[in-house]
Amino acid sequence: MEMRKIDPKTTPTRDFHQYLLGAVAPRPIAFVSTVDENGNPNLAPYSFFNAFSSNPPILVFSSNRRVVDNTTKDTLANVQATKEVVVNVVNYNIVRQMAVTSVQFDSDISEFEKAGLTPIPSDLVKPFRVKESPAQMECVVKEILTLGEHGGAGHLIICEVVRMHIDESVLDERNRINPHKIDLMGRMGRAYYSRASGDAIYTIVQEVTQLTIGFDQLPASIKNSAVLTGNNLGQLAGLKKVPNKEEVLALKEVKEIQALLDSENAQNALHTYAKEILDADDSKRAEAARIVWLSEYI
Amino acid sequence: MEMRKIDPKTTPTRDFHQYLLGAVAPRPIAFVSTVDENGNPNLAPYSFFNAFSSNPPILVFSSNRRVVDNTTKDTLANVQATKEVVVNVVNYNIVRQMAVTSVQFDSDISEFEKAGLTPIPSDLVKPFRVKESPAQMECVVKEILTLGEHGGAGHLIICEVVRMHIDESVLDERNRINPHKIDLMGRMGRAYYSRASGDAIYTIVQEVTQLTIGFDQLPASIKNSAVLTGNNLGQLAGLKKVPNKEEVLALKEVKEIQALLDSENAQNALHTYAKEILDADDSKRAEAARIVWLSEYI
Repeated sequence: MEMRKIDPKTTPTRDFHQYLLGAVAPRPIAFVSTVDENGNPNLAPYSFFNAFSSNPPILVFSSNRRVVDNTTKDTLANVQATKEVVVNVVNYNIVRQMAVTSVQFDSDISEFEKAGLTPIPSDLVKPFRVKESPAQMECVVKEILTLGEHGGAGHLIICEVVRMHIDESVLDERNRINPHKIDLMGRMGRAYYSRASGDAIYTIVQEVTQLTIGFDQLPASIKNSAVLTGNNLGQLAGLKKVPNKEEVLALKEVKEIQALLDSENAQNALHTYAKEILDADDSKRAEAARIVWLSEYI
Repeated sequence: MEMRKIDPKTTPTRDFHQYLLGAVAPRPIAFVSTVDENGNPNLAPYSFFNAFSSNPPILVFSSNRRVVDNTTKDTLANVQATKEVVVNVVNYNIVRQMAVTSVQFDSDISEFEKAGLTPIPSDLVKPFRVKESPAQMECVVKEILTLGEHGGAGHLIICEVVRMHIDESVLDERNRINPHKIDLMGRMGRAYYSRASGDAIYTIVQEVTQLTIGFDQLPASIKNSAVLTGNNLGQLAGLKKVPNKEEVLALKEVKEIQALLDSENAQNALHTYAKEILDADDSKRAEAARIVWLSEYI
């Protein structure tokens, strides 16, 4: 792996900005609704955004000084004047309409109208919610931290969520959001977005409170396997315990396994069979582990 | 769309945390490397994380008080003591190994060893880089903002990037990061991750400096089309100008179009044909628009 060294101080901001956008991704999108002092609505997407705390419930987004001409945006002026925002999330169904609002329309133009989205009143703050968004968070702005004075400088706009609205149809039977149903879009570098549903979703079940065996307890023959990938080894390292030797040896009585043991390179054959199980179904990790460990006893 | 109202003050933190994790997604992952005062390394993943400014280059991540027992994490203690971190990004190849580091190992255990990842020295700071990560950012911590005192409370750890390292093989010929090559993982709610490459990537080209026509300039017959989706209308609203009437009418001489005009519901036939073009290739937006607008003249 040949690495390129990049020094932010000697790299043009425009180029460094692109490196950052490409490397820190996928970024969630805040579709931020504000109003000015006269109640005129504004709507714009921001991907320098995330949740940062659940108690208190804190969202932070940054409205940056433009790299091109060092001007600031309507959203920032509105936030400074009124201290209220609604953060709406962006899913696949509205991403093209969202893109229309990234155009620099004049301040008196309503982006809701330009994008064909429906403003609906909030419960506790003045800015409108986007009716078509599957999750809308009404927020009060607690603090604005200015990060610099030049083009590309951000402002951390620290928001406390005072009310959340979630489309019932994206929740599962346990009242948790289902990623396939909410179908969110993430922002990447350049003109790229990523859709976070369907085949793009991976499930990784990892015990966090119980200790796991770790790479250091994997035998060398397994760590140096010609077949198993780093991800497969990660799955094995995440096991709660090393497979029981008797259970491992009992596999020698299984017909399918005997065929593998009889093959020319029995270790690779066992690892290949175990890899198929690991790649297809993480919940069969313990079963796969016994097959892998059998290569220690041949 | 039936919406569920959620009041953070009266919702158990555990449940609100899950709503937040499901709605604010996909989140980029900071694989944060730190050392304690004695130089012992620590490595842990954080998804309350993003870039917030490119000049100065600022990353922010939050090490939260645990919801379960209100304890804080080794990373936070190390950051407070040494004020340096390396933020490594997480791609598909190392996500399982990353998952192993989310286990609560004792402070004297090296997560590098447990996860089978290779610590390599940084240029300007003490914490190690993760050799297997395709982008590594050496940072100095500028400020730590405490957001609360209870379980679930975050700390904004505001970091300035002093050096970035990018794997040459993820860059394209224009020195921009290619999302398919870097193959990043995003964090969703519960045990879900999303892979941001391949078919999950969408390209949306939207002029931001030139004004676009907007939904309000779409004729009612188009806005109310039984065929075109909100995304299709967003593509049309993002055009720089309304299609020229003469060019639209000239389509009547095209054989393929004549067949559509002769069909029972000519408007739907035209819209269906245009929709196929819009869905397949955004760069043919202007061509599709002329076909859509023809429905105004039949």
